[in-house]
Formats: sequence, C-alpha cells, structure tokens
Amino acid sequence: MDQLFSFDQLRSFTRDVFLKIGCSQAHAELASEVLVSADLRGVDSHGVARLSGYIRLWEAGRINPTPDIRIVHETPSTAVVDGDGGLGLVVAPYAMQVAIDKATNVGTGWVSVKHSNHFGIAGYHAMKALEHDMIGMAMTNASPLVAPTFAKERMLGTNPIAVAIPAGEQPAFVADFATTTAANGKLEILQRKEQEAPTGWVQDKTGNASTNPNELKSGGALLPLGGDRDHGSHKGYCLGAVVDIFSAVLSGANYGPWAPPFVSFLPLPPDPVGEGLGHFFGAMRVDAFRPADEFKGHMDTWIKRFRNTTPVDEAQPVLIPGDPEREMAAERINSGIPLLLPVVKDLKEVAAKFALDF
Amino acid sequence: MDQLFSFDQLRSFTRDVFLKIGCSQAHAELASEVLVSADLRGVDSHGVARLSGYIRLWEAGRINPTPDIRIVHETPSTAVVDGDGGLGLVVAPYAMQVAIDKATNVGTGWVSVKHSNHFGIAGYHAMKALEHDMIGMAMTNASPLVAPTFAKERMLGTNPIAVAIPAGEQPAFVADFATTTAANGKLEILQRKEQEAPTGWVQDKTGNASTNPNELKSGGALLPLGGDRDHGSHKGYCLGAVVDIFSAVLSGANYGPWAPPFVSFLPLPPDPVGEGLGHFFGAMRVDAFRPADEFKGHMDTWIKRFRNTTPVDEAQPVLIPGDPEREMAAERINSGIPLLLPVVKDLKEVAAKFALDF
Repeated sequence: MDQLFSFDQLRSFTRDVFLKIGCSQAHAELASEVLVSADLRGVDSHGVARLSGYIRLWEAGRINPTPDIRIVHETPSTAVVDGDGGLGLVVAPYAMQVAIDKATNVGTGWVSVKHSNHFGIAGYHAMKALEHDMIGMAMTNASPLVAPTFAKERMLGTNPIAVAIPAGEQPAFVADFATTTAANGKLEILQRKEQEAPTGWVQDKTGNASTNPNELKSGGALLPLGGDRDHGSHKGYCLGAVVDIFSAVLSGANYGPWAPPFVSFLPLPPDPVGEGLGHFFGAMRVDAFRPADEFKGHMDTWIKRFRNTTPVDEAQPVLIPGDPEREMAAERINSGIPLLLPVVKDLKEVAAKFALDF
Repeated sequence: MDQLFSFDQLRSFTRDVFLKIGCSQAHAELASEVLVSADLRGVDSHGVARLSGYIRLWEAGRINPTPDIRIVHETPSTAVVDGDGGLGLVVAPYAMQVAIDKATNVGTGWVSVKHSNHFGIAGYHAMKALEHDMIGMAMTNASPLVAPTFAKERMLGTNPIAVAIPAGEQPAFVADFATTTAANGKLEILQRKEQEAPTGWVQDKTGNASTNPNELKSGGALLPLGGDRDHGSHKGYCLGAVVDIFSAVLSGANYGPWAPPFVSFLPLPPDPVGEGLGHFFGAMRVDAFRPADEFKGHMDTWIKRFRNTTPVDEAQPVLIPGDPEREMAAERINSGIPLLLPVVKDLKEVAAKFALDF
C-alpha cells in the first residue's frame, strides 16, 4: 500500500520543485530540507504530503518565491522579522538564526515573525539551537480550525509549540506538539481508515461532542488540549491563545480567525488585522544560567531517571519527549520513507506540472 | 458554612504570623500580600489555607525566615537567583523584579531560581510585568504527585504556567494553570463533598483509571493535562517536564521526583540533585517588538473578538483567560473572602501558637 523513497530522493525532488516556482538555489535547498525532515521524523502530515498545497498557494499568488526577509525592529534580545510573504520553510530558519545570534550576544534571543506562511514542523526549528548548547523554542499560529472552550466558532489554529533542550551523553529532549487534543493529521488517518475518533478530539457545528473524523468538513471544530471544560480544555485554549499572541500580535501578523488558511481554495479572511501568518522563536544559551557541562550532566540525570520511571505496563516504557521521532528518523534514513499511494499520485501530478521526473 | 473575612483582615493576620517566625517587616508585608492575593482571586487552595503548611515547614527547619536572596550568575538578559531557603512568597517577587529590570535594559529578562519554596499563585508574579507594559511569565516545579504518560510512579508536580499580557482599554489577558487535568485543590473540594472525580484526573497506584478523589492518599497519582495517551496526556507531560527543567535544571534546584514536598510530614527525598525548589520567570517589553500602543490596540481587538465568539450556549459566553479571577477579586475586595470552617479552625490554631488574635 505504501511506496518507499529515500530521504535524498524526496529532498532533491522537492528542491527541484521549489526551484521551478522561482526560489533561489539556497532557498530551495533549505525549504526542501525542512519539509522532508517532517517525513523523516514520522510527522507525515507536515512533509511532502503538503508540497502540492504550497504549490497551489504559490499559484494563488499567496507565496512570494523571492522574498526580501529582513529585521524590521530589534533590541539586543528581540527582533521582529518580516517574511515578505515567503515560504515559512525559509522565513523560519532565518528568524531562528536571528534568535541564536542574539542569544550568543546577550544570553537569550526572541524573534516574532509576520508576513510568513506555513513553516513545516516546529521541532526542526527549535532543534537548530541544540548545536550551540542552547535551548530552542518555536511556535506558530495556523488556519483557524479550533473552537475555544464554550465556543462553536473556529477561532484558533492547532498552534504547535516545540521546545528542544540539549543533554550530554543522552539524546536531546525535544517536545513538539499541537495545542489541541489531536492534530488534524490524526483525523485524516482515521478518515482514510473509516474509523471513529475518540471523544474530545472534535465537536460538530452546533458544539456537541462528536466522534466523526469528518466533522471539520461540515462546520465542526477541533478541540483544545483537554477536550472539554471538565478535562481542562480551558488550559489548551490558553496555550493556543498564547501561541497566537506571541506569533501574531507581537509581530503584526494576522491572529485568531484572521489567520490565512493553508488551503488555497478558501478565500483570505476579509479586513485583515496584520500581514500573513506569524511565528515565534526563542533561543537561550544554557551557560547564561549555569556552566553548559553542568547543565548537560543534570539533563542526562533527568532523562535517565524519567526513562526508568516504573511503567504501568512493562511492555510500554515511559518515553522522553523526542524519543519516537528520533527512532523513526534513524529507521527511515536507512530503510526509506514510506508514502501512501494518494501522496505519491499527488507528487506525480506536481512533477508533471513542472516537467520533472518522480 | 463559610465565614467572611476582609482582604485586609487576612493580610494583616498573615503578616503578623510571618513576623512571628522571624521575617523582616518588608518580607512579612510582601509574603502576606502574595499569599492572600490567591484567596482574593478565588484560588482558595493556594491562599491562607496553606499558611499552617508554611509554618510547619518553618518548624521543620525547611524555611529560612531571613534569607540572603541574591543573583549568583547573570548575562544581560538572564540570571540565576539563589533563594537561600526563603519563602517562595518573597524569593519570587525578587526574581521577577530582576527579570523586569533586565527587560528594561535589553528587551527581555529570564530568571531561573534555586533553593526556594512554594511561591503562592503563579499569576501574581506574572502580572507584575503588566504595569511596565511587559508580558510576564512565571512557572514553578512542585511536590511530585503526577505520573507521566505510561507511568505509575509520581515524577512531576502540578507545575503551573502563568502568562500575563497587557491590553489597552480591555483588562489584561492572564492565563494561570496547572499542567495537569485538574489541580490538587479541585480534588480536595470533591473529597469534602464526597463526590467522584471525572475520569482523566487521577489514576490508582497500579496505574488504572480511577474516579476516587482520595486516590493520592493510597499511592495514586494526578494525570498530566490530556488525561491519557488518546487524549494527549503526552502533551501535558511535555509541558510539566519543560516547567521542571526551566525551573530546576537551569537553576540548580531539585527536579522531578527530587523536588521537596510541601507537606512537612514527608521526608526530603534522599540524595538531592540540587537545592530546594525551582522557579522560572520571564519579562518581555512589548515595545521590544512593536510600539506599545499599537500592540495594546491589537490586544484589545483580539480580546473583543474572542469574547464575541459564537458560544455553544448563549448563557455561557466564551471567556478570556483571567476573566473569572478578575471578577472574583472585584467581588471579594468588596464583600469579603469566604473561608471554609476547617480553614478558619486551622488559622485559629496558628494564631494560638503565636499568641495572636484571629
């Protein structure tokens, strides 16, 4: 049912597509690396399955392939970056580097971004800090699909948060999660398998609990982490709101229901309150707090102690954030990345459009 | 069933108690303000109901009433503060002020704290940034009561996160929540009412789902926000873990299962990995990103738009984080703070111990 491709195959094809829409060589290389990293780490919903979506946005004039990405406001520890309508896949690495540079100089760096687009997986950007012995953070707002607690209207995106923390001998701690009970990609998997969703993932258009994974197609909404008020959905709503405000109100991007949709067939919301989509990045030098070796030694202790937590079921040990994605990447870099046949078909259509082989 | 007290009554009594254990006048004033702010805002579990707990910690020699609170490491945008075993109620305001001062200078300030104790409500500290047109953040680790996803062992505290964001004409956005499905205080309410807890709040000592609010007394655990794996508990676990690492691994405090318990009858965990409890504070000047008036105007738009979200039930409008606590404070400052009779009895015992009136 799946077809296997190597990381390099997918990366070079994706790079060639980005070159075809007019990206520079450097931008096409970078965008393809970020995009295919999602497939490598097992976040299939955010990888090459989205390539045709980016292309449709470009066809609709909503992506600028040759952006002039630049800092428009700054202090020693902060900046606002204007993505100039570019691919989030290239705007985000630029902004994360600004955060890292500021952290090098004054201990931490915090960058809010406007006028961008979908940036791939948050974890990729946060992990860029690790090689500098820094803690990295990345978040973004996104197409409004989520109803706040007590609401039947879609007001927020799945607004993910990623935090990457370096360790010593142990692999890094990498949390990367949507602030909803489940990401939209998980619903798509249930749709294909024709299975019901657990309660607490979605509600119907009247705001009633639902287990129908197709609910979003008929006006329903995703639910904030927690699911309902009794189970703490107001906390998931708080998290999604903070991501929205840090990403878009701080920078001057569109927030809440004004966030531009990823799918090109939906019109842009009228009366925009800002420019494009927003992101937020942070970098903190660990030696801005204590010597790096000391910190990393204690992270090793933290990780080993949590990995050895007594499990409920001996067959399912307690995991450290980042474990599943790292193991998936190690497997897929060797044995290949499996793509579903509809995704392969979609990529063949993209190839045909640009007279490329796939 | 409840007895009413004014904010000033509770504050001056609490101040007198802190003076009796040897705090300076300034520390006693501050600690009482922080503690009784919890009662004022309706977070009854974190207010004067805990006073006797602090006193027992002092009696056990685990609180230093005359701490030498100081910065032990810093960069332009960061610091580590050593609380010298003091009340978190005075250590936290000191550290938050350091964060604010650094933000004044370089745009943002980030302070990790070691060798502290329970700091009251996180929201109080985050809100200190508001008067400076800054975004404030506060978090803390706490007594291990929470089992990570797949675990039956208690490894993390309820590890709250608070984020306070200034607006213009609208009241500020103030999120303040435990990273568990429900805070321990909510279980205590159910215990008193002899009611069952919703599923997803607690598990028993073998790791099975439970609705018994007394489960923690027999080796059970609180659950991370999400409740179980299907409902995203791994995300709540990630959040609690990040709070633990920022608060304690960055600073050199005790983390995970080594966090010192709030209750004095439990022994300190053997082989400590750091000193005391840890906190983490942040302050970001909004004009380090865009002009403050512009930012606050857009926050007003954000808040008004979210408040006007179409609700599921007209009788229950969509709330902005901070609404319930602000309304509670406005009511209680005028009509008084109701205390449960067991809490009144507890305070009378504290009063008798120090020959004070209550």
